[in-house]
Amino acid sequence: MMTAVEPAERVAVALGARAYDILIGPGLVASAGAEIARRFPGRAVGIVTDATVGPLHAPAVEAGLEAAGIRAVRITVPAGEATKRFAMLEEVVDQILAHRLERGDLILALGGGVVGDLAGFAAAIVRRGMAFVQMPTSLLAQVDSSVGGKTGINSRHGKNLIGAFHQPGLVIADTDVLDTLSTREFRAGYAEVAKYGLIDDPGFFAWLEANWRGVFQGGRDRVQAIATSCRAKAAVVARDETETGDRALLNLGHTFGHALEAVTGYDSARLVHGEAVAIGMAQAFRFSARLGLCDAQVPVRVEAHLKAVGLPTRLADIPGGAGEAGTLMAAIGQDKKVARGRLTFILARGVGESFIARDVDAAGVEAFLADELAGR
Amino acid sequence: MMTAVEPAERVAVALGARAYDILIGPGLVASAGAEIARRFPGRAVGIVTDATVGPLHAPAVEAGLEAAGIRAVRITVPAGEATKRFAMLEEVVDQILAHRLERGDLILALGGGVVGDLAGFAAAIVRRGMAFVQMPTSLLAQVDSSVGGKTGINSRHGKNLIGAFHQPGLVIADTDVLDTLSTREFRAGYAEVAKYGLIDDPGFFAWLEANWRGVFQGGRDRVQAIATSCRAKAAVVARDETETGDRALLNLGHTFGHALEAVTGYDSARLVHGEAVAIGMAQAFRFSARLGLCDAQVPVRVEAHLKAVGLPTRLADIPGGAGEAGTLMAAIGQDKKVARGRLTFILARGVGESFIARDVDAAGVEAFLADELAGR
Repeated sequence: MMTAVEPAERVAVALGARAYDILIGPGLVASAGAEIARRFPGRAVGIVTDATVGPLHAPAVEAGLEAAGIRAVRITVPAGEATKRFAMLEEVVDQILAHRLERGDLILALGGGVVGDLAGFAAAIVRRGMAFVQMPTSLLAQVDSSVGGKTGINSRHGKNLIGAFHQPGLVIADTDVLDTLSTREFRAGYAEVAKYGLIDDPGFFAWLEANWRGVFQGGRDRVQAIATSCRAKAAVVARDETETGDRALLNLGHTFGHALEAVTGYDSARLVHGEAVAIGMAQAFRFSARLGLCDAQVPVRVEAHLKAVGLPTRLADIPGGAGEAGTLMAAIGQDKKVARGRLTFILARGVGESFIARDVDAAGVEAFLADELAGR
Repeated sequence: MMTAVEPAERVAVALGARAYDILIGPGLVASAGAEIARRFPGRAVGIVTDATVGPLHAPAVEAGLEAAGIRAVRITVPAGEATKRFAMLEEVVDQILAHRLERGDLILALGGGVVGDLAGFAAAIVRRGMAFVQMPTSLLAQVDSSVGGKTGINSRHGKNLIGAFHQPGLVIADTDVLDTLSTREFRAGYAEVAKYGLIDDPGFFAWLEANWRGVFQGGRDRVQAIATSCRAKAAVVARDETETGDRALLNLGHTFGHALEAVTGYDSARLVHGEAVAIGMAQAFRFSARLGLCDAQVPVRVEAHLKAVGLPTRLADIPGGAGEAGTLMAAIGQDKKVARGRLTFILARGVGESFIARDVDAAGVEAFLADELAGR
C-alpha cells in the first residue's frame, strides 16, 4: 500500500471544531487515496468529478483508496459552469443516495471550482450534512473556491445565489495537475492569486510582479504563490466564517465581475470567472481613483500587471462587449452582496489597501460604468 | 397599528447565538405581523404557505405586516407531502430571488410541517442562509417540525434525506388555528405529543391519559400539552443541535414509521406521518417487550392510549396493508439513522424510559416485522 507523500506546504484553517488542513505540493494526487484512508478510516468515498478531470485523475485516487480497503464510487458530471444548476444538484444527490453513502461517509470533490461548489453543496444537504474533501484541480479552485466552505449553484437571477456554508475536512492541492490546464485557465486562476496581494499584501503583489513567470512555469514559485494565497484566505475565513464581516474583502473585483458573468450569460467562450474578476479588480481600482480614494497611478500599476500575464482588464476586452450600463446595474442589484438596498463594494486606497465601502452611490456606479463602456 | 398579544406560554430554545423563542397561545395569528415587525424591524418578509392554509391565515399576517410598514410577498405551494420535492424547492427558491428578497430579509413559513420543512430549507440555501420564522398551523408542526431547525425534502430513496439544519429566529404557535384541522390531522399531531411522554416523561404521559379530551377540545389543556411538548423538544435540541447524540431519542417510533410511509408511497389517504409514528411507537414498545427489555404490559398500555384517541397502532390498521417484511427492511436500511451498516432503534424499558439501541440485529427486526404482518 502506498503511503502519503509529505506535502511541500501545509496550511491550517483555524475553525475550531471545523478546523482543517490544506495540503499543497507536487505529486499529491497519487497519494491522495492513502492520505484520505489515513485521516478518515473506514468511510466509504463518493468521488464527484467531471467528464474532463475524472479520466485524468480519478483512477489514481481510486487505486489508492482500494489499496487501503476503502469502498469508492465515482459520480461524473458534465464539465463547465452550466453544471452548477438545480437539475445537476438533484442528480448528484440522487446518485449519492442510490450508492447508499451514509451520513458518516465522505464526498470527495475532484475537479475545479464547479465540481467543488456542486459536490460540496450536495455534501451539505444529503442527510443534512456529510463530510467532504476538496481535491481542486484548477488554480482557481486551489487558491479560492476549495478553501472557506462556500458551496453552491447558480440561479437564473445570478451566480452562486443558492448554496450553503459547509467546510471541507481536508483540501489536497496537487500543484502538478495544473500543468494540464490551458494557459487561459491558468491565467484566470492567477487573477485570484493577484487578488490576495491587492487586498492587503503589497509585498506579495510586488513579489508576483517579479516572479509571475515562475508561477506559470511550475516548481517552487508556484507552490509558494498557492500557499501564500491559501494562507491569506484561511486567515480571513477563520476571522469571519460566514461572511458577516471582513470576509467580504475577498470579493474584491467580484461585484463588477459577477455582473459581467451574468450579462455574458456565463458563456465561458466569452468570459470565465477569473477573467471577469481581473476586469472587476481593474474596475474597482479605476473606480477608487475616480472617487479620489487612491492615486491615479495605482489602477495603472494594477492593470499593467494583469495585462502582463495576459488577463483582460477592460470591458472592451470581452468578446461581444458587456451590453449597457443599465443591464450591468440590474445584475449588480441582484448580486448577493447587496445589503438592504444599499450597494456594497470593495474599494482601495492603494495596492494592498482595500476596504469594504458600504452605501456606495448607485448613480455614481452607473455613471462610471457608462464611461467605461464608452471607453472613456 | 395592532400590538402583539401576550402569548399564554413562551418557551426559550437555548442555542447560544442561535437561541430563539417559541410563542404559544390563542389569538397569535392576528398579532403575528406586529410581533415580527417588532422583533425583525425593517426586513421584507416572504411568506411561504400552501393553497389550503394561505387563504385562511395569510391575509391577517399580511395586514399586520403592512400596518407596520413591512413589505410582504406571498409564495404559495400546493398542499401535501408531495410538495417536499426538488422541483418545488427550486420553485420556491426562484420566487424568493425573483421577489428580490435579500440576505437580511425574512422567510415566514405559514403552514404545517411540509411548508415549514420546505420553506426552512429554501431559507437555508438562498444566499447561503436567510433568517426565517416558523408559524406552524398544524399540531404536528407546532410540537415537532417547527422546533429544532431540521429542514428538508424527500427523495425517492426515503423521507427527509435531503436538507439542512437551519434554526428559525422565532416560532409562533397559535393554538386556535388548530380548530380548523380535521380530527384525523389533529390525532396525527397528537402522536408526537404522546411521544414526549413516552420518551422520558411518564408523568406527562399519565397526564395525557387523563386529559387528552381537553387537548383535543382546546383551551388551557391544549396550550399546556403543546408547551410541555415544545419544552421537551427544546431541551433535547439545546443539548444536541445536529443529532450526533441523544437527540436521536426524538426518533422514537420514527424508524418503523418512516419505513411505513415509504412503502405506502407517502400516500396521505392511506397513512400520514403522525399515524405512521403512532404505529411505529407501538411497534417500538412491542419490539422492546419481545427483546425482554420491558414488561409485556407496557406496550399494552401504550397501545391502549393511542387507540383511545383514535390512532392506528398495528400494520393491519393501514388501508391496503404494509407489504412484505423484506420491503420494510429495505426501507429501514435506507433510513438516515442507519450508522455504518448497523441498525439503530429507539427502544424502551418502560413508559418514559426510552434509550438509543445501536447494533440492533437486523434479522431480529425482520422476524419481528414478519410476525407483525402475520398478525401474530
